[in-house]
Amino acid sequence: MSYIVHQYSPSLLTDFYQLTMAYGYWKAKIDQHEAVFHMHFRRPPFNGSLAVAAGLENIIQILENYKFSEEDLSFLQEMKDERGEPHFCEEFIKYLRDLEFCWDVDAIEEGEMVFPYEPLVRVRGPLLQCQLLESLMLNVINFQTLIATKAARIFIAAEGAPIVEFGFRRAQGIDGAVSASRAAYIGGCVGTSNVMAGKLFDIPIRGTQAHSWILAFDSELEAFETFAETQPNNCLFLVDTFSTLKGVKHAIEVGKKLVQKGKKFLGVRLDSGDLAYLSIEARKMLDAAGFKDAIVLASNELDETIIRDLTLQGAKICVWGVGTNLVTSKGQSSLDGVYKIAAIKAPGGDWKYRLKISEQMRKTTNPGILQVKRFTSDKRYLGDVIYDELNAPKDEWTIIDPLDPTKKKNFPLSASSKDMLKPIFRKGKRVYDSPSLTEIRGKMISQLPYFHSGLKRFLFPHQYPVGLDQSLYKIKTQLIEKIRRSK
Amino acid sequence: MSYIVHQYSPSLLTDFYQLTMAYGYWKAKIDQHEAVFHMHFRRPPFNGSLAVAAGLENIIQILENYKFSEEDLSFLQEMKDERGEPHFCEEFIKYLRDLEFCWDVDAIEEGEMVFPYEPLVRVRGPLLQCQLLESLMLNVINFQTLIATKAARIFIAAEGAPIVEFGFRRAQGIDGAVSASRAAYIGGCVGTSNVMAGKLFDIPIRGTQAHSWILAFDSELEAFETFAETQPNNCLFLVDTFSTLKGVKHAIEVGKKLVQKGKKFLGVRLDSGDLAYLSIEARKMLDAAGFKDAIVLASNELDETIIRDLTLQGAKICVWGVGTNLVTSKGQSSLDGVYKIAAIKAPGGDWKYRLKISEQMRKTTNPGILQVKRFTSDKRYLGDVIYDELNAPKDEWTIIDPLDPTKKKNFPLSASSKDMLKPIFRKGKRVYDSPSLTEIRGKMISQLPYFHSGLKRFLFPHQYPVGLDQSLYKIKTQLIEKIRRSK
Repeated sequence: MSYIVHQYSPSLLTDFYQLTMAYGYWKAKIDQHEAVFHMHFRRPPFNGSLAVAAGLENIIQILENYKFSEEDLSFLQEMKDERGEPHFCEEFIKYLRDLEFCWDVDAIEEGEMVFPYEPLVRVRGPLLQCQLLESLMLNVINFQTLIATKAARIFIAAEGAPIVEFGFRRAQGIDGAVSASRAAYIGGCVGTSNVMAGKLFDIPIRGTQAHSWILAFDSELEAFETFAETQPNNCLFLVDTFSTLKGVKHAIEVGKKLVQKGKKFLGVRLDSGDLAYLSIEARKMLDAAGFKDAIVLASNELDETIIRDLTLQGAKICVWGVGTNLVTSKGQSSLDGVYKIAAIKAPGGDWKYRLKISEQMRKTTNPGILQVKRFTSDKRYLGDVIYDELNAPKDEWTIIDPLDPTKKKNFPLSASSKDMLKPIFRKGKRVYDSPSLTEIRGKMISQLPYFHSGLKRFLFPHQYPVGLDQSLYKIKTQLIEKIRRSK
Repeated sequence: MSYIVHQYSPSLLTDFYQLTMAYGYWKAKIDQHEAVFHMHFRRPPFNGSLAVAAGLENIIQILENYKFSEEDLSFLQEMKDERGEPHFCEEFIKYLRDLEFCWDVDAIEEGEMVFPYEPLVRVRGPLLQCQLLESLMLNVINFQTLIATKAARIFIAAEGAPIVEFGFRRAQGIDGAVSASRAAYIGGCVGTSNVMAGKLFDIPIRGTQAHSWILAFDSELEAFETFAETQPNNCLFLVDTFSTLKGVKHAIEVGKKLVQKGKKFLGVRLDSGDLAYLSIEARKMLDAAGFKDAIVLASNELDETIIRDLTLQGAKICVWGVGTNLVTSKGQSSLDGVYKIAAIKAPGGDWKYRLKISEQMRKTTNPGILQVKRFTSDKRYLGDVIYDELNAPKDEWTIIDPLDPTKKKNFPLSASSKDMLKPIFRKGKRVYDSPSLTEIRGKMISQLPYFHSGLKRFLFPHQYPVGLDQSLYKIKTQLIEKIRRSK
């Protein structure tokens, strides 16, 4: 399963400035200061409301295997700076070799719904060690969360019809395909065409034939017949190589022969043309031929909006094959997650809270040692509060919208709720028992009804209430004012 | 260098239907029929005109290491179909184990400009062996060509100012970052923040400090001073943690101390706010302080249109740091490349030409054993013709626009030209001597002036003339008519 770790050395899978900063911390002797970093994103993808957390399991595997190999170290040792001098001194290379990682990591579990500003991951530990994780953490969680979210949107659009992920050929690189297959499964897909992903993550693998199969024979009918002879248990025919409805006719012809042999004709795949019209016609032809159970699978540049539109037009499609637009996240090719320091403490000192200021309020970060609490009722999730663990309220929860402080919401201390960040590592050791991918997918699907349907609209959805706890809001505001006053 | 190959087994990096088709070919005893497949794309990315070929070197490494490992084979052997029966029989597993790959591969070299319908890669060999390559070939070449093209657009917009690629943290997976760094370098970047990519591909690696460095100290000034003490040869300061122009002031203050110590103050990095205004102000402040050589580097969600716009507004930016929008290819997250069979021949038989028909002319494929010829003059590339090697013209070249047959162009047989597809493998053995990545990048840059400036416009560019040779056009048309007449 640890397919990333053995591929590249995780310690060099980073932006170079993480290493120059690490070097600086070490030289300035603040490498051991205790720090807290959070990863959060700022905007829900696709102008939507919900996002689905994904990627944590890969991060866990990376952290469990994190080290600087001898090869990494000699590469770093040979790096030269602008003046041709070594970037890093020998003593620092030795320091990296001997590093014992002792982070505390807390995270929101995969398959949970997550929202802007909420820490998806919190890392606490020696400043230098926390810093090293930034780039890789962001790479993995940004991408998988993005794809799981895209898949969940498609899952919502498909209204229960199965979705198979077909994106390998146009994904952004090999891992862009493999980890997208994983995230797409979390987001609700039932299978993938990607054999490697299926093998690594135990996702059901699907596939029958492409146009080249049809074109390898002198006629479409011959191609279908030969497929039926050679693989009678996998007969879903691709019917659009020359003319879709002629193709359906040929498929039915071969389907009848299959039945005579005691085999099952699974159905047809449409891959071009007007999928609404063609699926309706194909359905009629299949039904008339007695193949009421045969499926009509459709593919061809699908996404959630096209699926919804085709469904509205009465398309008779039982299974959706979604590729490129799912795995490359058409419409938004990245999630804007960041990983920011929020508190630091010298040995024996007090916590100093930190934030980065921006002219855009959205980009100003939150200080503290943060946790997320989700308020629940029997049937509905009511809202989330981001709060500082060292300054939790003593009377009631007052939640303030981070972009509009006049918007507030109150919950009694006794309100039913759950803390979302779970312990994953303690002092560098894993303490989290990972669920299976199927369990993660199940969690995503079972949570959906707890979020109001207005949040699941594709255009101008309602926004789920997420705010800062009043004490945190006050700490943040005072800190901003103090910084703005300084020279 | 073979970082992909050892990671995942290339033979399982595929869509499942490649394997079911392979099984069918083998059972139908046509696995050894000779076939020709081409990879081409249909639309130039970003509504542009030019695209930059990239990814071939990775494909070469994959093909050199292509095999079914014992682990792959036992996985395939255990796969079950819809009825719970083994997908593949034991004899087929043995066949895969013993396969000796003997493709002939021809391809357009990396760094060349390429256009719709042109075969970027041609694979000729046993039908089954050609089929197996489809998914992986498409994955690698689609993505790297897309990113090299995006980088070339940014290179054009930057008008000679260096571009550093900063995309790791939001790339689509780890390989989406690493291979994007490679493709971005081909497309004209001068360096990357990605340490692993720098190590693997010998790309210059860049980086100094992030906001967390500043926030680890009690003030920005202290942070800059400590960086200057610990890494005096790498002093490019990130100035926007609290307030950009105050940051520039602090950077200059520390810069002066650096000079007193005989070190160099490299400059400042702006990462938010109005980059035009802030860079102009920063430039003035740096110049006034005597730092005329100090650079202003800017980053923050840049792409080719923003860079062009900022330049038009007089921004004083000497180096561009481009991340997310480059490596995830904002605006078009995938290239629509396909890999299609174009001819097949039974042992002792004649070539049978093949094409897939579509209601959209753009999606109908070209039959034959294709080559691309580029017509050249001293100063300009004039146009490309796609022709069938078995039916090359004997008198003159008549090139027909594939989407508008009334548009034609003629060249004498003696016209200066070059064939673009070069031999890469013969009978499974590599025959191509790969250029270095720096040479590939150099080719991209040196070719640009040979293409008319109208092709480099971002909005509604002129289209470079690419057409089918007249004989090929005739063969194609007759084949379509024949198929349309059939039942």
